[in-house]
Amino acid sequence: LDSEPDTLERPYPLPPKSRLNQVLPEDLKTPDNFVERDPRLIRLTGIHPFNVEAPLTDLYDEGFLTTKDLHYVRNHGPVPRVEDADMLNWEFTIEGLVSKPTKLTLRGLLRDYEQLTYPVTLVCAGNRRKEQNVARKTKGFSWGAAGLSTALWTGVSLVDLLARACPQRGARYVCFEGADKLPNGYYATSIKLSWAMDPERGVMVAHKMNGEVLHPDHGKPVRVVIPGQIGGRSVKWLKRIVVTREPSDNWYHIYDNRVLPTMVTPEASADLPEVWKDERYAIYDLNTNSAVCYPAHDERVVLGQVEEVYKVRGYAYTGGGRRVGRLEVTLDQGRSWELAEVTYPEDEYRRAVEGDILYGGRVDISWRDSSFCWCFWELDIPLARLQEAKDVMVRAMDDSMSIQPRDMYWSVMGMMNNPWFRVVIHKEDGALRFEHPTQPANIPGGWMERVKAEGRNVINGFWGEKAPGEEDGVVEAEPAK
Amino acid sequence: LDSEPDTLERPYPLPPKSRLNQVLPEDLKTPDNFVERDPRLIRLTGIHPFNVEAPLTDLYDEGFLTTKDLHYVRNHGPVPRVEDADMLNWEFTIEGLVSKPTKLTLRGLLRDYEQLTYPVTLVCAGNRRKEQNVARKTKGFSWGAAGLSTALWTGVSLVDLLARACPQRGARYVCFEGADKLPNGYYATSIKLSWAMDPERGVMVAHKMNGEVLHPDHGKPVRVVIPGQIGGRSVKWLKRIVVTREPSDNWYHIYDNRVLPTMVTPEASADLPEVWKDERYAIYDLNTNSAVCYPAHDERVVLGQVEEVYKVRGYAYTGGGRRVGRLEVTLDQGRSWELAEVTYPEDEYRRAVEGDILYGGRVDISWRDSSFCWCFWELDIPLARLQEAKDVMVRAMDDSMSIQPRDMYWSVMGMMNNPWFRVVIHKEDGALRFEHPTQPANIPGGWMERVKAEGRNVINGFWGEKAPGEEDGVVEAEPAK
Repeated sequence: LDSEPDTLERPYPLPPKSRLNQVLPEDLKTPDNFVERDPRLIRLTGIHPFNVEAPLTDLYDEGFLTTKDLHYVRNHGPVPRVEDADMLNWEFTIEGLVSKPTKLTLRGLLRDYEQLTYPVTLVCAGNRRKEQNVARKTKGFSWGAAGLSTALWTGVSLVDLLARACPQRGARYVCFEGADKLPNGYYATSIKLSWAMDPERGVMVAHKMNGEVLHPDHGKPVRVVIPGQIGGRSVKWLKRIVVTREPSDNWYHIYDNRVLPTMVTPEASADLPEVWKDERYAIYDLNTNSAVCYPAHDERVVLGQVEEVYKVRGYAYTGGGRRVGRLEVTLDQGRSWELAEVTYPEDEYRRAVEGDILYGGRVDISWRDSSFCWCFWELDIPLARLQEAKDVMVRAMDDSMSIQPRDMYWSVMGMMNNPWFRVVIHKEDGALRFEHPTQPANIPGGWMERVKAEGRNVINGFWGEKAPGEEDGVVEAEPAK
Repeated sequence: LDSEPDTLERPYPLPPKSRLNQVLPEDLKTPDNFVERDPRLIRLTGIHPFNVEAPLTDLYDEGFLTTKDLHYVRNHGPVPRVEDADMLNWEFTIEGLVSKPTKLTLRGLLRDYEQLTYPVTLVCAGNRRKEQNVARKTKGFSWGAAGLSTALWTGVSLVDLLARACPQRGARYVCFEGADKLPNGYYATSIKLSWAMDPERGVMVAHKMNGEVLHPDHGKPVRVVIPGQIGGRSVKWLKRIVVTREPSDNWYHIYDNRVLPTMVTPEASADLPEVWKDERYAIYDLNTNSAVCYPAHDERVVLGQVEEVYKVRGYAYTGGGRRVGRLEVTLDQGRSWELAEVTYPEDEYRRAVEGDILYGGRVDISWRDSSFCWCFWELDIPLARLQEAKDVMVRAMDDSMSIQPRDMYWSVMGMMNNPWFRVVIHKEDGALRFEHPTQPANIPGGWMERVKAEGRNVINGFWGEKAPGEEDGVVEAEPAK
């Protein structure tokens, strides 16, 4: 990668340089004892399986593209081990309702198909789930707001692969199965065939991430990348592509990545197979979401220079190829809103020159209307105004006018959590201290746990403050712990 | 239509029979003095131009398909007059960035292209705008919740028309222009070419509505029908299809059908051409929305039979070909929700037998994943529970997990209003009386005007009830006027 001659004027960013990582001591006693990882990653499910996000600030500071060091990982079990020498012989099939069932190797994929390179933001459906878990325990583990990452992926369009296999009449879905053997079988899921065949949706079978062979945690040697949809559909360590009449009946397709109706409790959900199997509740497209990255949790800003401004900053995304149209900020709990400046680094790739080849793949998304990546927003706010405010909250709206709501939609799997992102502002010792909603994993901190510990309902529509008909007073901000 | 022999077993509903309408006395002094109309329609902008919706109950009672009698109408000016004898000679062009510019007549459209028939729900972007106008005056007129209607449309796929015209490299948009000459030129707008060319989006050039020649108010003789998008893109009296590099620069494309950021006031908007021209604020896909139809506004239910249940019922829809996945009802102002039963009459058309021809068009949507129509929901609620509740509210969520929010997103044009639909329950004289948010046009009534008249902020997150930090008490329901 580093030695690739950079002969082209590129109007778009290239990934930051990865660190040299090693197998970490805590992985030595696990089946993943061959996987090199970055020690900054926060483990969300103990040591193994490996489910991690970066510290939010580190993720944001890397910029538009995330290194493999800090890219979030969602593994259901041990990482399949594939040696470099065996990679090109890796086999996967295209089968089911197709006229020409195919067995492909990575060698064949590289040799026989056009290679493409473009950036895609992957997002775990559980991003921001910790907030749901604080409100009320779900069946999922506690992602903070860094369950998303962006990389340059290189591979082959699934449209090309499927077109050669010739889907038959009656085919409606495409199932993907990985090599990761789990308690309930190999991990598999499905998407609609109409989406898989739509070039605007950009589904890719990828073999490079940021110009390098896929890292073992990210599907080495071959994976699916589905832009605009939750990460759980982008099957890693790809072994089978099966065209079918019905959605996947794999256990992980049915009992994961769903937003069940809000009244279904963890207890009740155990006896509701028909509810789990209702495809209306399966999550495909991401919903509109955003978070504040600066000020960071527990960041302190010393006062006294009241002319100064603070640049509030963060990210936003939406799904289905749509684009975030606006990001609004409130300092008065939603009574009024200000418009932040939004930048779309993905658009810089649309301006690639004709014939641009990066990492062996053609960079050409100029023809495409859809958007696959996160965007960044910022707003300069005078410190004097932050000092007067209780909190700063943000909400994004996408170009289908889908807006982040005030209210959390709690569900049994705790997925797709996207209420207004709220940062509380504490005034103490001549400084402002900022408090995010939560911290990832079991890390304590955040206004939600604090308010809940005070016995208040954090999702009453006013973040645990006094609601209509309630007797007692408004909760006062607490001093720092 | 009525004489068409119905030889097929049809698994789907056909439209209810239209009434025999006449030119109404109030239209005699307007340019529309040749257009026969149903006197039940509620005029939203005085007598002329004709902008109307049906009484919500009448609309709901017609069922899945709406007759031309009750179909909402949004006219910007006088209706172009086209005699029956001239219809087949009606000309329209396909021009701009195409290799084969074409001039077509309706005769040619009928003769040279495959005809299709399927149901589409059209929705005005202003549906439910009266609620915004009560909260704070917008620049738009006051639609109630009946600014939507569903018909069986017959015509030709725009994919077929454009494919024969051969869009050229660099083409990105398709502009549609009508024959309605207005103060700022002919009405015109545009959509993305990638959408126009996507069969899943089902854009049609239509010449029949519910099996009849288009009614003059609905585009006689030829119009565009764009499923899943706001009605304002479905140009009537079609004269030109222009393939372009940029979005339409027509006045009505820029200064209508936009959701500007919420802080832009009517006064400020006059001086912000760059904000109006920002395509991120243009509305295409409908957002998720729903309303209660029963109980109707001012409906009274006599108590005393406490075992009885009331079937709360209404409609829901979403945009972009997506499907409403759930409809939830709350009787405790959002603290808990119940799941309503949702039915999708559109799905009955997916089961049409092979070879089914209706109104001269092939009925075949079995291959399609997208949904273009409203759906219906209902929930049986014991009267005893309604009696205990302050109000009943509903919210829909679509299959991209886009949910109706608690909060109104006010904007200068008052479009895409979709907060939880709230019906207040009054107990009086041994009966329950139900109160909708508003009534259409200048018709008084509804809890929003009442609460506002009491000096309360109807969009404070608690419908004008006490909010955190407020001093005075909870507003009590008023007796009937």
